[in-house]
This record gives sequence, C-alpha cells and structure tokens, in this order.
Amino acid sequence: MPIVPDGAVLADHAVVVTDGRIIDVLPASVARSIYQPSVTIDRPGHVLLPGLINTHTHAAMVLLRGLADDLPLESWLKDTVWPAERRWVSAEMVRDGTELAIAEMLTAGITCFADQYFFPEIVAETAIDLHMRAVIGTPVADFPSAWAQDAREYLSKATDLVHDTYSGHPLIKTCFAPHSTYALSDESFVEIRVLADQLDIPVQIHLHETAAEVADAVKNTGKRPLQRLAELGLVNASLLVIHGVHVNTDEIALLADAGVSIAHCPKSNMKLASGFAPLAAYRAAGINVGIGTDGAASNNTLDILDEIRTATLLAKAVAGDASVLMASDALRMATLDAAKAIGIADQVGSIETGKLADLTCIDLDRCNSQPVYDPISQVVYTARADQVSDVWVAGRHQLERGHLKNIDTDSLRLKSNEWQQRINASQLPK
Amino acid sequence: MPIVPDGAVLADHAVVVTDGRIIDVLPASVARSIYQPSVTIDRPGHVLLPGLINTHTHAAMVLLRGLADDLPLESWLKDTVWPAERRWVSAEMVRDGTELAIAEMLTAGITCFADQYFFPEIVAETAIDLHMRAVIGTPVADFPSAWAQDAREYLSKATDLVHDTYSGHPLIKTCFAPHSTYALSDESFVEIRVLADQLDIPVQIHLHETAAEVADAVKNTGKRPLQRLAELGLVNASLLVIHGVHVNTDEIALLADAGVSIAHCPKSNMKLASGFAPLAAYRAAGINVGIGTDGAASNNTLDILDEIRTATLLAKAVAGDASVLMASDALRMATLDAAKAIGIADQVGSIETGKLADLTCIDLDRCNSQPVYDPISQVVYTARADQVSDVWVAGRHQLERGHLKNIDTDSLRLKSNEWQQRINASQLPK
Repeated sequence: MPIVPDGAVLADHAVVVTDGRIIDVLPASVARSIYQPSVTIDRPGHVLLPGLINTHTHAAMVLLRGLADDLPLESWLKDTVWPAERRWVSAEMVRDGTELAIAEMLTAGITCFADQYFFPEIVAETAIDLHMRAVIGTPVADFPSAWAQDAREYLSKATDLVHDTYSGHPLIKTCFAPHSTYALSDESFVEIRVLADQLDIPVQIHLHETAAEVADAVKNTGKRPLQRLAELGLVNASLLVIHGVHVNTDEIALLADAGVSIAHCPKSNMKLASGFAPLAAYRAAGINVGIGTDGAASNNTLDILDEIRTATLLAKAVAGDASVLMASDALRMATLDAAKAIGIADQVGSIETGKLADLTCIDLDRCNSQPVYDPISQVVYTARADQVSDVWVAGRHQLERGHLKNIDTDSLRLKSNEWQQRINASQLPK
Repeated sequence: MPIVPDGAVLADHAVVVTDGRIIDVLPASVARSIYQPSVTIDRPGHVLLPGLINTHTHAAMVLLRGLADDLPLESWLKDTVWPAERRWVSAEMVRDGTELAIAEMLTAGITCFADQYFFPEIVAETAIDLHMRAVIGTPVADFPSAWAQDAREYLSKATDLVHDTYSGHPLIKTCFAPHSTYALSDESFVEIRVLADQLDIPVQIHLHETAAEVADAVKNTGKRPLQRLAELGLVNASLLVIHGVHVNTDEIALLADAGVSIAHCPKSNMKLASGFAPLAAYRAAGINVGIGTDGAASNNTLDILDEIRTATLLAKAVAGDASVLMASDALRMATLDAAKAIGIADQVGSIETGKLADLTCIDLDRCNSQPVYDPISQVVYTARADQVSDVWVAGRHQLERGHLKNIDTDSLRLKSNEWQQRINASQLPK
C-alpha cells in the first residue's frame, strides 16, 4: 500500500532498499530477476505500508499513564497532571518515559512521532539513541517548569540545545511548540514568529481544544484564540493546529486559506470530553489533517492503528454519513498527510522511489482480519498493533516478527515500575 | 477483578475451580495451604476477570467482514449485505462463519456471545462443538430467507430445532430474536409473546437503531417502534433492546420502568452513522446495559475490549463530562451487566463462589500497559485482545498463553479464504 497513488494496493510487489532509502518498487518476480540483494525478507499474507506517523504526542507522559483517569478536564490537569509534572519532570524522567514510549510506538508500527515536552534535547537524544524519527517541538510558556523559568529562557534553551544542534540531522526535525494561547503573552508569540522565520522552522500549538478555552479567551482578551494568533502573524502554512475541536465556519475557511494543517487526536478529545473535531468539514475544505494520539495520560495508548479506526468511525457518526471518510483516507492521514502536517513529506509518508525506507509490515493472516475482500479496509477496521510484524526506520530493521531488535523491553518495564512506585508514593499524602 | 464487589481488585489472590465451577476466591498464600489442586496455573503481572460477554452479534457474518465498508446504511444493506446473504447463507456458511467468529472471540477473551442469525441450530451445534457459551436468538421475520419462508415457519423451526432441543443445556440458552418492528406484523409479535411466555424465554430485537427507522414507523404505523412493541405487550424485564440509539426522555423512562436491558453496540452505530446512543442517560435512569460488537460486517471486529474502550470514551464525549463513566463501569457492562442483559447472571459475569468458571486472564506486563497505577483503568484504556493470555469456559482451558488449545485456526483461515473466493467471484458481474 504505497499511499501514492491514492488507494493503490500492489499485490505481490517488492520494495528495494539501499542505504536506508527506497530505490525501487516493482513486481516481486521482476525484482528477483533484476536485483541481487544481500538480504531478502518475504512476508506472505502481510501488507507493507509507509511507517505510521504520530502527529502529536507528549511521549514521556507514558509514565503518568492511568494516573488520573475519568476525571473532568479541569481536575485532571490542575489536581493531578500538573502537580505530578511539577514534582517529577526531570531529564531522567523524560529519558525513561521517552524510551518506553518509543518501544510502544515502534511495536505499534509507528516510525516517527511529533513530540512536545519539557527537556526536548533529551527527547531528541533518546530518539537518536533508539534510531527513531522524531519532530521535536520545543515547549514555550510564560509559566515556569523544571526546564525553564519564563518564555525567554524556554526560547534561548530551545535555540541553543535543540534547533541549532539538530539542524539537518537525518532523524530529527525541530519546531517551536508554544503550549497554547492562554499560556503565552503577545510579546512571546512575536518573539516566536521572529525566531521561526529566522531559523525557517514550523510552529505547532494546542488550539481550540475545549469550548472553555475559547470562551475564556474571549472573556480575557476579547478575541478567539485563532483570531489572536492570526493577528500576531502566526497563521500560515508552517503552522500545525493541534486539536481544533471548537471552530466555526469562518475559522475553517481561514485555516484552509492559510494552508494550516490539523493534528487530530480523537481519543484524547473523547476521553477528556473536549468534544468532536469536525474532521469531515476540515477535509471538505481541503485542510490537511494528520492523526495523533496525544500523550498517554489522556488516551491512554500510543497506537495509531487504533486512533485511525476511532477517527474514521467517529467522523462518520459526527457527520451522520457512513461514506464521509473512506478507509484509504484514514490510512493517508496516518502516513502522507501526517508527514505533510509535520513538514517531512518530501522524505517519508509514502512508498516511492527516493523516499526514506520508513516501513511498517502488518500481518492480515489472523482470524480477526479474515477474510480479506479489501486489504485497506482490513488494515483500518480490523488490524491491531500486535499484527505489526516488522518495522524499519531509514532502512534499519527495528521490529522483526513482533520483537524489538534493538531495545531491551525488560529493563524498560523495570524502570517504569520504579517510576510508578515513586510517583504513587508521592500521591499518598493528598 | 471479581466485579463483585464493584470496583474491587484483589491482589495476589487465587481462584479455586472444581468441575467447571468456582469453589473459592481467597489470598493465594492461604489457598496454597488449604488446597491440593491437580493443576496450578500462575500468571504474575496478569489480571483475572470474569469471561467477557458479547451481548450482541451475528457471528457467521465474519465471512462478510469488509465486503461493503464506507457505504451509507441503505446501500450497505440493500445493495450488498442482503444480496450476499440471499445468495450465500446456508448451513455450511453459518457453521464455517461461526467457527471463525468463535476462534476470534475466544482469542479476545470472550467466553459467551448472544447471537442472532439464520440456521440458529447450526450456531448452537457449533458453539457446543467448540465448547463456547452462547445465547442463541432464533430469528423471526415476515420475509423469506434460506432458513424459513414466513414468520410461522421461523417460529416452528425455532421451537422444534432450538428452544426444545437446548432447554436446560449447560452451555446454551435460547431466546426469540424478531429482527425489528419493520420486519414483522402485529400478528407475528403476538405469536412471539405467547410462545415466549409458554416457553419462559426472553426476547431480543433491534430497536430504534436509526432515525429513519423511527420516522418510517411513525409514517407507516402512526407509532414509534417502542410504543408499538409496548402496546403488543413485549416491553418487559425479559426484553433486550439492541442499539436503542434514538430514544426520547419518555422512552428512557418507559424502558427503566419496564426493567428492559440495552445491548449497546457503539462501533457499529458509529460505522453505519446511526448516531450516538445515550449511554450516560440510560445508566442514570438505572437501565441495565451490556456491550455488544454487532456483526463483523458493521464493526469489523468481535473485540469486547476494544468495544468497551470505545463505549467509555464515546459516552464521555457525548455527555460532555469526562467523569460520567468510570473504567469499572465499563468492565461491568462487559461482564455482569452483560450477563444480566442476556439472562445468565445467576451463572456467570462475576468471580464468585458457586458461579461457573468462565474466566479471562490479561497480561498487563507490556510496554503499552505500563506503568500500572490502577489495574482496572489499564484493562479498559490500554489492554488489547492480544494481551488476553488465557481463557476458560466452564473450567475448560480454551486459550493458553495466547494459543487456542482446541481449535485449528489454520483450517479456519483456509475455509475463510475459500468463502472469500466464492463470494468475491459472485460480486464481479454487478
């Protein structure tokens, strides 16, 4: 399933890879007569896809997974997640959490994630250590954290430790990740715009996630968040809007005109009762949409197959039309459209000659995916993460027949268990 | 996780089983000193649940899985599903399909399914052959099928081949399954009521699934379907309403007063764009709700873990309140409440002394379920079907460390493939 051309399924085909890059896609029988590969991998009954892309997450938050479920958003954030973060976020926590998250994502067929969290330089280092592709969003906020005290420090650390360091890196791209309009002053946004232009890197932001966020902004600033951002010059083709749940018709038109992309995180929006993003309307307006899991504290899995299934089913129900989103659209939102949303579609997102060999292989020869009338439909509506058999990142074989080749998951689980003991103990006195 | 008491998690406990029945639930250390079992099974890092129950499906329809995705409901039914059923449904198709479905369900931790399909006697035989618990709904409609020509024949075959044959069977319970109010005349419903009273067995029916169903009924009969059914004397505590998506406040009150249960199938309702059932409102009214997958032609998996996750997330989003449905509620709807809905809560649905040993063991020691602050939360929000390690039905070990002990899945996949070739070929000329 090369994604380009749209909806294509090439039976009995081969993908030829050299030095981490795809050099040919052709019928397997022809490939056998032309090429003498050093390694040949056969996967009958499987499908091969471009590696899945997680358009939005906070990877290290896996260590807070399940700490505060079934709470209203206010209480979830203010009574549990933020206190836990203030108490526990550190370089060590971010490294351990990001490792666990990368193990989970690779196992689920994800070859690239767009992250935003504190200690982004540690997220980048960890991704490189584990040979995972990542878009590292450097956080910016006016409030202090273990990483920085104010917007100025967030931005200077971001530039010194991340944007300059990883410019041109084969696995890492960087962007600015101001948390939200309620977390930053106009001055901070102006500074971000100037830096983003200078460094030529994109910006991503949580925007219009909840009705309360929009209402509070109107009350406090007289403007809806998107309007304020537009007036500050940040609404353009290098902006990624995360969530975009509560938007009106004019705002959809503005986003479409500006060429903004959306990171759609339906499970997080459902779990926190934020609402239903108008996915069908976004697509009808020609807006590019990638799929993200959000962090594991509000999902609670980093599983893009599960997320596209939910996104598709939900879009049909919200639109009241079972035909609004096809299975092939869902697959595209998890691959090529996701790559566009995070600015790396020239490198990954489809199986085409010249692109990087980020590849995911899925076993459809399971009872729960049989029979196979339409392979794309079976991937979107039936395939679970455990059916992901193999994953390659830039040609490196990371998952082989369901086993991570280069990551010791036993030690990750031990570390996770240690964090659980520590964090649980700290919750006791409340 | 015994489900009774509600929300309990008993760490380091043992369940003692003799002759297919639970005879004790106690701390493992105490169990070791009291009992000398012939077999001891240890599963550290796992949780043990009552077997999951699928409150509504059409098992044999797995053979049509993915045949007609992304179509509007009208076209899905009339242009694809119904023609395929008229052409292909037979005793052989129902046997092969039900076998494949049971393999899928056992692997996913399901120990009992409530079915309604043609050739129900074959569904019952197949369940018994594979040692699966089932509630067999005998179909009734005024339209002909490969199994019966009219309501009279549906009912006489049902009584002769199913209700009489399996009365008192340890694995099988039976009920009447009139398809819907639009598929039966008042006379047929009256006959069902009389027979159901005589035989003392329950009734289940697809009801208020779509807005069009309700509107058409008002146009054609002057009554909403539930009202018509109530006037015919069928709305009582032995009725299971399947779907119940489009109901008003008065109807919720009527269902609550009558003690009716609901089979909630959120993924099917989303995929066919039927709408959002008011799960939180049902529960607030004290109505018992079980979770079902519906058939695999409209889901497309028979996976109750996935279904309860979707049900819970969706209920929060629909209610606009992240706290409306707790993880422990979701688990109950897939076990004890499901058992109540299909009339077998005296036998299964919780881990209690005296109940049948229908048990499901889930491995939480995976990267995607770590850390474990709250085991119930991890089961509901993170566990996938592949984490089901072991399943017992009435004490018989059916799934052991993820492998079906008594079912040859290779031969099932071969048969499924043959059906695919045949059915696909028949679709070509259209």
